[in-house]
Amino acid sequence: MQQAKQFTLVLFGATGDLAHRKLFPSLFRLWKSNLIEDFLILATGRSQADRAAFLEYLREYVEEASTEHEAWASFEKCIEFFQLDAKNEQSFHQMASALESLEEDRNLSGNRLFYLSVSPGLFGSITENLASSGMLKRDSNHQDAPWSRLVVEKPFGHDLESAKKLDDHLSRFVEETQVYRIDHYLGKETVQNLVAFRFANGMIEPLWNSHHIASVQITVAETLGVGDRADYYESAGALRDMMQNHMMQLLALTAMEPPLSLSPKDIRNEKVRVLRSIKIPTSPKEVAQSTVQGQYGPGVVDGVKVPGYRDEEGVDSNSTTPTFISTRVELDNWRWTGVPFYLRHGKRLPSRVSEIRVRFRTPPMHLFHASECSPSCPNVLRIRIQPEEGIRLSVGAKRPGPGMNIDSVDLEFNYSDSFGVDLPESYERLLLDAIMGDPTLFIRQDEVEASWVWADAVLKGLEEQPVPNFPNYTAGSTGPEDAGSIFVPLSSPRASEPEDAWGSFNGDSGSDQNHGAPS
Amino acid sequence: MQQAKQFTLVLFGATGDLAHRKLFPSLFRLWKSNLIEDFLILATGRSQADRAAFLEYLREYVEEASTEHEAWASFEKCIEFFQLDAKNEQSFHQMASALESLEEDRNLSGNRLFYLSVSPGLFGSITENLASSGMLKRDSNHQDAPWSRLVVEKPFGHDLESAKKLDDHLSRFVEETQVYRIDHYLGKETVQNLVAFRFANGMIEPLWNSHHIASVQITVAETLGVGDRADYYESAGALRDMMQNHMMQLLALTAMEPPLSLSPKDIRNEKVRVLRSIKIPTSPKEVAQSTVQGQYGPGVVDGVKVPGYRDEEGVDSNSTTPTFISTRVELDNWRWTGVPFYLRHGKRLPSRVSEIRVRFRTPPMHLFHASECSPSCPNVLRIRIQPEEGIRLSVGAKRPGPGMNIDSVDLEFNYSDSFGVDLPESYERLLLDAIMGDPTLFIRQDEVEASWVWADAVLKGLEEQPVPNFPNYTAGSTGPEDAGSIFVPLSSPRASEPEDAWGSFNGDSGSDQNHGAPS
Repeated sequence: MQQAKQFTLVLFGATGDLAHRKLFPSLFRLWKSNLIEDFLILATGRSQADRAAFLEYLREYVEEASTEHEAWASFEKCIEFFQLDAKNEQSFHQMASALESLEEDRNLSGNRLFYLSVSPGLFGSITENLASSGMLKRDSNHQDAPWSRLVVEKPFGHDLESAKKLDDHLSRFVEETQVYRIDHYLGKETVQNLVAFRFANGMIEPLWNSHHIASVQITVAETLGVGDRADYYESAGALRDMMQNHMMQLLALTAMEPPLSLSPKDIRNEKVRVLRSIKIPTSPKEVAQSTVQGQYGPGVVDGVKVPGYRDEEGVDSNSTTPTFISTRVELDNWRWTGVPFYLRHGKRLPSRVSEIRVRFRTPPMHLFHASECSPSCPNVLRIRIQPEEGIRLSVGAKRPGPGMNIDSVDLEFNYSDSFGVDLPESYERLLLDAIMGDPTLFIRQDEVEASWVWADAVLKGLEEQPVPNFPNYTAGSTGPEDAGSIFVPLSSPRASEPEDAWGSFNGDSGSDQNHGAPS
Repeated sequence: MQQAKQFTLVLFGATGDLAHRKLFPSLFRLWKSNLIEDFLILATGRSQADRAAFLEYLREYVEEASTEHEAWASFEKCIEFFQLDAKNEQSFHQMASALESLEEDRNLSGNRLFYLSVSPGLFGSITENLASSGMLKRDSNHQDAPWSRLVVEKPFGHDLESAKKLDDHLSRFVEETQVYRIDHYLGKETVQNLVAFRFANGMIEPLWNSHHIASVQITVAETLGVGDRADYYESAGALRDMMQNHMMQLLALTAMEPPLSLSPKDIRNEKVRVLRSIKIPTSPKEVAQSTVQGQYGPGVVDGVKVPGYRDEEGVDSNSTTPTFISTRVELDNWRWTGVPFYLRHGKRLPSRVSEIRVRFRTPPMHLFHASECSPSCPNVLRIRIQPEEGIRLSVGAKRPGPGMNIDSVDLEFNYSDSFGVDLPESYERLLLDAIMGDPTLFIRQDEVEASWVWADAVLKGLEEQPVPNFPNYTAGSTGPEDAGSIFVPLSSPRASEPEDAWGSFNGDSGSDQNHGAPS
């Protein structure tokens, strides 16, 4: 593995949650694994006075600082701090001089990764000031010139229009190739394995189409509530928060055609083709028939009583923001026409799980008595993104004993057993790739826009429904009662395939629990 | 489950090895599980004086008699004994009267299963005498008439001619439908599961053909030597002993088309179609190119020094009987043309394992670096017949960490974990089926003959080779050094698929060990 050398990571929002929970621990592990060397982290923030105070603060919040005391002390030498007022241009000019002298001291050549871990309201002024102070430079054609890259966190806009506007703004200062839009789902090993699993195995791809697959379910379930994010969440809601970005990416990787190569361009080209093939609902009725939204009321999760969404801090007591969305997506392309993709996401669900569940068609002829599954045992491939990362394939096997009865059994593999390592943190991979200049796992603007085209249409359709009767599910339950109603038969001739309800949330139970499905 | 009632099992060879090792324990378990009731076992033999002496003998040899003392004592009430001289017609007439009065005493209606657990030399006289004494009756069209069935053990002839002769003899007394030719492999749960697994799963059958499968390996490896069977084995050898029967059945179940139904007729029709499609070698050269034979010399198995075959008791010190056969079979049918089926069987190999290994084709395009397998990770489905019964599917997955490297991982299922029961003994199922009149798991005469057509051609080809330089493998090794030489490329255009060597015997190791394969 190549080492990433000679760079400065300029971190905006260094005193934020993400920085001490994910970014600094990930950088520390990359450094410890010898994957990065010869670099500077320039942390910026308003709330700490100076480097000493900032390091003190990090030591308090980053677990590794105490568990690996000595290594951390050595790692700290790579960290500098600059107290910055992000809205004050003058402050950026001061920072520019400071940065240059710090780089000179350390013999760094001026390659810079600007990581914007800040609220989207600050994107504009920070990028503008970075550019005007000369810190952020547009890529030239000159090979030896130091590079500048911009890492931005979601949300990438609030709708298609604002997403385009944000991009227009960024493109005033940098090229598209300099923008690294992070979707931390893409950094997960299990998500990257989607590509590996599909295209490294000769037996998978021949089955991966509407002839052999009956439906695909993508679930991202959370046990947490809105926490301290009410400010953002109230105007975003479940669809913008998870579906437009992370789940669209899971959908794209699950459904995409084999890429020409593993190059960033080829993989992202295929992903955007999937996103562009999503059938866009054209009427509120169509949205109503394919989408169910919910908002949690008070309840019990993991044995703990929790408040309803409307009682959370910062939330309007009459809020109509959905915290649950389940929706049926159809792809208008040769491979997938007629195969429903069910996407489901919610907060305050009974367990935390992200998984993709591919249900294969049943055999054309039923030779056997299926004893434990009805109408017959379908083959289901479950790709577990988190937790308990792994793959489980349910197949029918003969039940031991007289007769020929079929029971469902599971062929299983899990990462921790097979590889004997803890999976690396998403951010380790993503930070390293951004430093190395590999944008494969970052979202390209055309992907963002294609997702918004779909999301806007669904959001618009939902807005035109009657005001929802929220809360409509109890915290700790599996969601609104009618969440299964989107399983209306498709008009496609292939829809004769029986479609059962959402699988259970509990990945450990072999059988699916019926949940709100039409009888 | 229906109960089998009202029958007499007349057992010839009741003092033989099979009777006390398998048949009586199986009957005992069927009785204990309430699957048989209201029956009589009439044991016959020369070597015991009377019922008391026979029961005494059973108690000594059958483990269950002591571990489950009380139940066994009750089970014994169903056992009677008749001392019989199998070559003396008079003795059969006496037995006929005894049988009738025993059945009368027990209110049995005369349904009889004659189980011939005797050397094939006795088949002729026993069946003839059974018929002439009136005990064995040809099936009439009369529905209420009691039935007679004949269970026979392999060998079913020594070659095609003798197999036909044996059948001609049997058909003088009974209909084909009354003959139950036992192949105990078909009684194994894992073998029956071949049909279940292939046809109860929508995702398997679309892959199960020459487009997606590169090769199939069927291995039956034994650690045992010839034991006390030299008398039979010297004239039979590895091919007749295992391949013509058990392994041909595994091949048939692996390769057969979906049956019209699970009826005995439909399943056996499909099996015989496979056997009839085997390409028959037409010259000694063809046999030499596709078959390697071996005979074990002295060596060490499981840490114990063992003699070579020629030093075993009852074996000719210049014996040219093969104890190892590996052969490449091709099927001339639409589904399988171009896919080699490798069959391998031997005695004194390093471990005891029976398995079917299906190797899928690699993807048409290699996008990834395959790190632990070369030239890329093929998908291999291993169906373990015994021991550690189960299914293992090897697939490529992304190795955690930077880059996109593929490692082979296993999706696994095993019977004992999934079903939490010990698999029932083959003979339980087979005895019950014979009593119930279900011939599905028994071999039909046309299957026997189709297997002999192939076996005769191979045996003839081997006979015309130079006298083999035996012994050519050490007991405890994986067989003759040139056992891999049969991997010559096929003439088919599909043969570009890389064919690696036989898989390792040790099913627990993920990787294959190369063994005697051409480089």
